[in-house]
Amino acid sequence: MSRSDGLPASIDIREVGPRDGLQPEAPISVEDRLRLIAALVDAGARSVEVTAFVSPKAVPAMAGAAEVVRGLGAPGDVTWWALVPNVRGAELAVDAGIRHLTVTVSASPTYSQRNVGMSTEESMAQAAVIAGMAPAADIVISCAFGSPYEGEISVDEVAGLAARCRDAGATVTLADTTGMATPRRVSAVVAATGPDVGLHLHDTRGTALVNAYAAMELGVRRFDTAVGGLGGSPFAAGAGGNLATEDLVHLCDDLDVTTGIDLTRLLEASTLTASLIGRPVPSRLATAGPRGRLAGG
Amino acid sequence: MSRSDGLPASIDIREVGPRDGLQPEAPISVEDRLRLIAALVDAGARSVEVTAFVSPKAVPAMAGAAEVVRGLGAPGDVTWWALVPNVRGAELAVDAGIRHLTVTVSASPTYSQRNVGMSTEESMAQAAVIAGMAPAADIVISCAFGSPYEGEISVDEVAGLAARCRDAGATVTLADTTGMATPRRVSAVVAATGPDVGLHLHDTRGTALVNAYAAMELGVRRFDTAVGGLGGSPFAAGAGGNLATEDLVHLCDDLDVTTGIDLTRLLEASTLTASLIGRPVPSRLATAGPRGRLAGG
Repeated sequence: MSRSDGLPASIDIREVGPRDGLQPEAPISVEDRLRLIAALVDAGARSVEVTAFVSPKAVPAMAGAAEVVRGLGAPGDVTWWALVPNVRGAELAVDAGIRHLTVTVSASPTYSQRNVGMSTEESMAQAAVIAGMAPAADIVISCAFGSPYEGEISVDEVAGLAARCRDAGATVTLADTTGMATPRRVSAVVAATGPDVGLHLHDTRGTALVNAYAAMELGVRRFDTAVGGLGGSPFAAGAGGNLATEDLVHLCDDLDVTTGIDLTRLLEASTLTASLIGRPVPSRLATAGPRGRLAGG
Repeated sequence: MSRSDGLPASIDIREVGPRDGLQPEAPISVEDRLRLIAALVDAGARSVEVTAFVSPKAVPAMAGAAEVVRGLGAPGDVTWWALVPNVRGAELAVDAGIRHLTVTVSASPTYSQRNVGMSTEESMAQAAVIAGMAPAADIVISCAFGSPYEGEISVDEVAGLAARCRDAGATVTLADTTGMATPRRVSAVVAATGPDVGLHLHDTRGTALVNAYAAMELGVRRFDTAVGGLGGSPFAAGAGGNLATEDLVHLCDDLDVTTGIDLTRLLEASTLTASLIGRPVPSRLATAGPRGRLAGG
């Protein structure tokens, strides 16, 4: 449902902090990862990417993925997502109890080869298989707004991949893996794919929030964000942190776009995140506090 | 002139890095400040706030203001601005050769009392006098989008101040002194003042760029920015850096909104800025480089 100002009445945020956010960090315990997930759910998160079923040698921070899933308890009204890189990872995730899989296909041939050792075509074929292995799957098209290797990525290429994701029964998320999106590029890609896509934005160049705003103006209403603005692929040249959940919630609160997330409790989860990683999070809002927080108040 | 997408064909950027950017920093030499100004002009800046004629005891980084102005040489096609806090400062600025004065009036009564020891009314009366002391003056309305003391500031109050600035023969710039602006607030204030205002945005909460984008969609085409995203009032609780010049130029380049500034040379000026202050600048773009900079390229 959209409003007279063109913005959606509400958006759905998938919190990816426990996966994409923590992925490049030094490993923290399963118990602490579960504490963070609980804090995010307490703040109102209803869709959380909790871990990735990847090789602990490649990504030490994601070790213990199955223990994380076992520790979640009943999902209730929360959707638990797990990222899987291949069929073996999908099997492990499903065996652990995950019903919502995310899998990545790169629109950049070079990124695909470097990241997963497959062509985009091979990767897409694998993603279609994985999409059939669980009740729900979301295929994340990485480098959808540009690649650090090839530069511009054809809008038709992205739209073609999006169509194949849908043919495979999956939803589609467009990832700005290395922060190359701009409002112009978001507009061009969304015009080609239609607005029923998720956006997974990174703030490498300080443009994540303006891109989210431009996307909402186009009717996009699904976003991946990470508490604190943590994140960045350990494999992608120049990858910066994710769009911070608190930055998007703060913007949406002010625009009267419903997110279901309570900013005050989310900022508590952000503070917990900073304590777990042992340094301040990148989000400037997390440091400054919401605009309603007055001096001496 | 606006386009079919509502964005202006071009915007005018006033570079305030040598004043607002350096103001809270440890003092650097007049010679180095002139090097920075020259680098910004080389990059295409045609409007630069070069210094403030304030007490060197209160703001050590602005000591030597008259020497800075004397070192500028002939203005050519560049407009040199200086901030003045009072009539005495305006006299010193004009004596030094400045023809374009900026003077601040706060829409926040408490901020006004704390910052300059005057009521908003007293400050406005003084600004009107100063506006008559030079060929051109720009009155900057601080806390125009909210105050860290009172919270919301009435849109009518801001519009009333803007009208009085214009009555005094000055142009008007609306400052988001402590980063409380949002697209909604920008829309409300600009609806009341009209789009012929400058915006002086701070990135305290990571919202400076989205606010600039929303303002351009409303037809605003004058912006104050600081190279590197330096800045923040030493007197304002919670003030963060200015909107980074490179962040706005990068966005405008991609949107085909003309700024007259060359991003590559501007990033060189940003690198110079970092070397002068002895640490990286806040702009994420300055760290990551423009989206066109490819891996290994």
